[in-house]
Amino acid sequence: MTDRLIYLPLGGAGEIGMNAYVYGYGPADNERLIVVDLGVTFPDMDTTPGVDLIMPDISWLVERKARIDGIFITHAHEDHVGAIGMFWERLGAPVYARAFTANIARRKLEEHGHPAKVVTTVQTWPDQVTAGPFKVGFLPVSHSIPESAGLVIDSPVGRLVHTGDFKIDVTPVLGDPFDRALWESVSKDGVKALICDSTNVFSPLPGRSELTIGPEIEQLMRDATGMVVATTFASNIARLKTLAMAAQKAGRSVCLLGRAMRRMVEAAVEVGILTDFPPTVSPEDAQRVPRENLMLLVTGSQGERRAASAQLAQGPYLGLKLKEGDTFLFSSKTIPGNERGVIKIMNQLSEMGVDVIDDNTGRYHVSGHANRPDLETMHDIVKPQILIPMHGEHRHLREHVKIGASKGIAGVVAVNGMMIDLSGNRPKVVDYIETGRTYLDGSVEIGSMDGIVRDRIRMALNGHVVVTLIIDENDEPLGDPWCEIMGLPETGKSRAPLVDVLEEDLSQFLNRADDKTLRDEDKLNKELSKIVKQVSQTEIGKKPEVTVVVSRLS
Amino acid sequence: MTDRLIYLPLGGAGEIGMNAYVYGYGPADNERLIVVDLGVTFPDMDTTPGVDLIMPDISWLVERKARIDGIFITHAHEDHVGAIGMFWERLGAPVYARAFTANIARRKLEEHGHPAKVVTTVQTWPDQVTAGPFKVGFLPVSHSIPESAGLVIDSPVGRLVHTGDFKIDVTPVLGDPFDRALWESVSKDGVKALICDSTNVFSPLPGRSELTIGPEIEQLMRDATGMVVATTFASNIARLKTLAMAAQKAGRSVCLLGRAMRRMVEAAVEVGILTDFPPTVSPEDAQRVPRENLMLLVTGSQGERRAASAQLAQGPYLGLKLKEGDTFLFSSKTIPGNERGVIKIMNQLSEMGVDVIDDNTGRYHVSGHANRPDLETMHDIVKPQILIPMHGEHRHLREHVKIGASKGIAGVVAVNGMMIDLSGNRPKVVDYIETGRTYLDGSVEIGSMDGIVRDRIRMALNGHVVVTLIIDENDEPLGDPWCEIMGLPETGKSRAPLVDVLEEDLSQFLNRADDKTLRDEDKLNKELSKIVKQVSQTEIGKKPEVTVVVSRLS
Repeated sequence: MTDRLIYLPLGGAGEIGMNAYVYGYGPADNERLIVVDLGVTFPDMDTTPGVDLIMPDISWLVERKARIDGIFITHAHEDHVGAIGMFWERLGAPVYARAFTANIARRKLEEHGHPAKVVTTVQTWPDQVTAGPFKVGFLPVSHSIPESAGLVIDSPVGRLVHTGDFKIDVTPVLGDPFDRALWESVSKDGVKALICDSTNVFSPLPGRSELTIGPEIEQLMRDATGMVVATTFASNIARLKTLAMAAQKAGRSVCLLGRAMRRMVEAAVEVGILTDFPPTVSPEDAQRVPRENLMLLVTGSQGERRAASAQLAQGPYLGLKLKEGDTFLFSSKTIPGNERGVIKIMNQLSEMGVDVIDDNTGRYHVSGHANRPDLETMHDIVKPQILIPMHGEHRHLREHVKIGASKGIAGVVAVNGMMIDLSGNRPKVVDYIETGRTYLDGSVEIGSMDGIVRDRIRMALNGHVVVTLIIDENDEPLGDPWCEIMGLPETGKSRAPLVDVLEEDLSQFLNRADDKTLRDEDKLNKELSKIVKQVSQTEIGKKPEVTVVVSRLS
Repeated sequence: MTDRLIYLPLGGAGEIGMNAYVYGYGPADNERLIVVDLGVTFPDMDTTPGVDLIMPDISWLVERKARIDGIFITHAHEDHVGAIGMFWERLGAPVYARAFTANIARRKLEEHGHPAKVVTTVQTWPDQVTAGPFKVGFLPVSHSIPESAGLVIDSPVGRLVHTGDFKIDVTPVLGDPFDRALWESVSKDGVKALICDSTNVFSPLPGRSELTIGPEIEQLMRDATGMVVATTFASNIARLKTLAMAAQKAGRSVCLLGRAMRRMVEAAVEVGILTDFPPTVSPEDAQRVPRENLMLLVTGSQGERRAASAQLAQGPYLGLKLKEGDTFLFSSKTIPGNERGVIKIMNQLSEMGVDVIDDNTGRYHVSGHANRPDLETMHDIVKPQILIPMHGEHRHLREHVKIGASKGIAGVVAVNGMMIDLSGNRPKVVDYIETGRTYLDGSVEIGSMDGIVRDRIRMALNGHVVVTLIIDENDEPLGDPWCEIMGLPETGKSRAPLVDVLEEDLSQFLNRADDKTLRDEDKLNKELSKIVKQVSQTEIGKKPEVTVVVSRLS
């Protein structure tokens, strides 16, 4: 049997979030495997109420644990590294990452009781890690977190370039500028396939550099008369630096609020990439700093309910309180789906008299992803035989394939679960793997198709009626059925309590019911549910979820 | 006691949606009242799962029913007219509106069994309606629905101008162009207060005319090779006309899909404002039209789950099926909070191979609201003594007041429930009315603070455990307690079924419980709930909602 080179996304392809990509080489169905990234995505009330985190379903990988030669993490964003703590034990392979990413990955492993030493800190290209049939090199690349890397994956049948998340920024304030010569050098002998970030494929203008926003932010810090609060992703260390330096220049002390903020700065200092960050003051000391000499750098740019920005919008937080004349800067973009939470905070701040400045104008934020012209630059640099878009919803992947096609590059829209054979000159779909989402729900992992979350959504939409009934030793109802309602109005059309109307109709049914029905658990359950739904529909115009509990004294 | 002139927003101020404004004149607490607009707002899963519609709480008005002299509807958008059917009977006053708005209002009244004749169709300014101490005139104004009106409200102490929703568009394709001379003429003798739309106060550039997008849309219709589907708000008759005319010019037949789409076109034809709409074909006939000669004009621009756009994104709908090479145009802006639904449809369309074009570029949609420079134009035209921003979230109202203040116009951020005395030279807050939101939930109206929706949200986040227990005549448990779970994982940490672990621990508690506890309904309930929460926290890391049903055989 001939060996083949495969690509299989388990997460991140057909969505933005929970990245998990697999590469394999070897005989069909017996390839040696490497994993690139193990990320999470975040729940929302519409589709995943009560869920804590969403992760890719890695059953396919777990069943092939013995064949995994390494796990490579491109950078430390949650959607790339967030699941490493939860999943590592089940995959059991060594983890490779650059220093900053390794620092974050080790913290996550330790939180789950795994040894930090399973993570190896790698040097960048031209160093390479040998993992089974692959040699993997880390190419520094600019993104919105330090030490991001693209991967050069050498297989026996050719070189692959996996961009990871990237932008083309030659002045990124902190960390690696985009090094065109380096990317050209790894590409010059031919690249079989470019597996490429697609997030900003619909942004038509070239991306702007992190450096461009510094002066604007400085000006804002100087012009502000009261306290300034700034929020951004805590992992955007370059932005934290830009904000903190601007504060310093404007004569403002910097105070960090929020666990993630302190943790990220700590990690960046530990690995030595953040060296000239201004000294910070504690929240306690900040209370004594005049407002016009203070900047708070806080978590919660996406409106997260418990983050520092939401806390400050509700009242005093750690002794600090916003008021009329203060300025709140969202140095961030609101991720689609988070608008309501962010807008709520903006209005709460407005009620306090705080001036809110957001990314409306683009002066205080730049994206970490390559826009369309920058993606084309990457295509031109790498000149791949095959283009596989990743890190995008279906519409992003499709658009990206079209761009490649317009330049004669063979491509395919490969979504989660599609196994692509890259051995030939064109990508070939060779298998569909059953994949999906795993929810961390409290402390339990549940599948997205288990029906648990579906039941919760139904209770949220329809309310819940509980019917209890006692059946005696002679299979006769003992007393009347009893109803409890949750999430439903207490009275409806007839102006009598809904539970009374329900109990009355259920009693009538039971009085008429024959022995056979009363003995048949399923039938009785079904009939009682039906009555509850019918009566509720008439009374309150809704069909609730129904739980029937029949207690038999036999 | 001296008479006073008051303004009281009950909805629409401090939010975008469910507009309801009250004006009054007379002795304090005995003013004669008029109502401007009675709108609804739409629920979302985050805050109002299962709710059908959200309306302002009009208790304050209902208690003063005898003092209401008229209800004036500025235009036929749901957030201005949507609650008229539900609320009219409780207010009982005559309703005034221009023909198109009156047509829609009558349909809503009839749906609720009220006579259509309570709505009087008014002529525009200089005609005036006398309503108690007020004379009210309708000023035509450009917006994104036909026959929008600002109101000139003459009171014994001066003139008020209530803009309604508006934009400054002198070439609106259909309906009334903005007539600067007219607005100047009503303002020339002095305006006491301008009550002004604030929706787009953060949009820095002058608004564009509806006319500008016609050529762009025509070009798109011509360039498209397959079927074109276009969606926009059904009430935006000018846009429907632009889209339909562009289709016609590109040799495409027009087919309307969606109830609201047909209904709005019908109303516009009935009142004579839509005269040269191209002939349409039925969905059945459309099946026989070559794709390149067809345009579907469909509902669902906001990703509504049951609208035509969502249906088409899922598969065949009324015999029509999209495929590779077709084009789907969102001639609309996604309202914040609706992103997830819209993006879902875009990706479903992408999976079918359909090219999706949205408002990314601004070429295919213009807003119906005045941007910041246009608001300033309105201030300059009306030259009011007082500026009261409305139709905006707190941040919009606050920004709008600031703009006024920068030009020396007295203003106030008046949110729902704040009663403003406009008698003097400056606005004065004289009362805070208890107000809020009423939910239409199925067929029942419930208050937003009733706890019903809160219980649903809790069940969605935490799941629901039902405990049933029988206590015999001697106050002893009869058999073991029984647990049912809904929306929770079946097994947790101990790998045994969660219900078994719960029942075991509840049984142990009951075995130890003294007679007093077993006889005390409240205490028993509390203790059992506590155990369920504790055990669940240990087993599955979640504290569910708990309903305890104790059946006593006594």
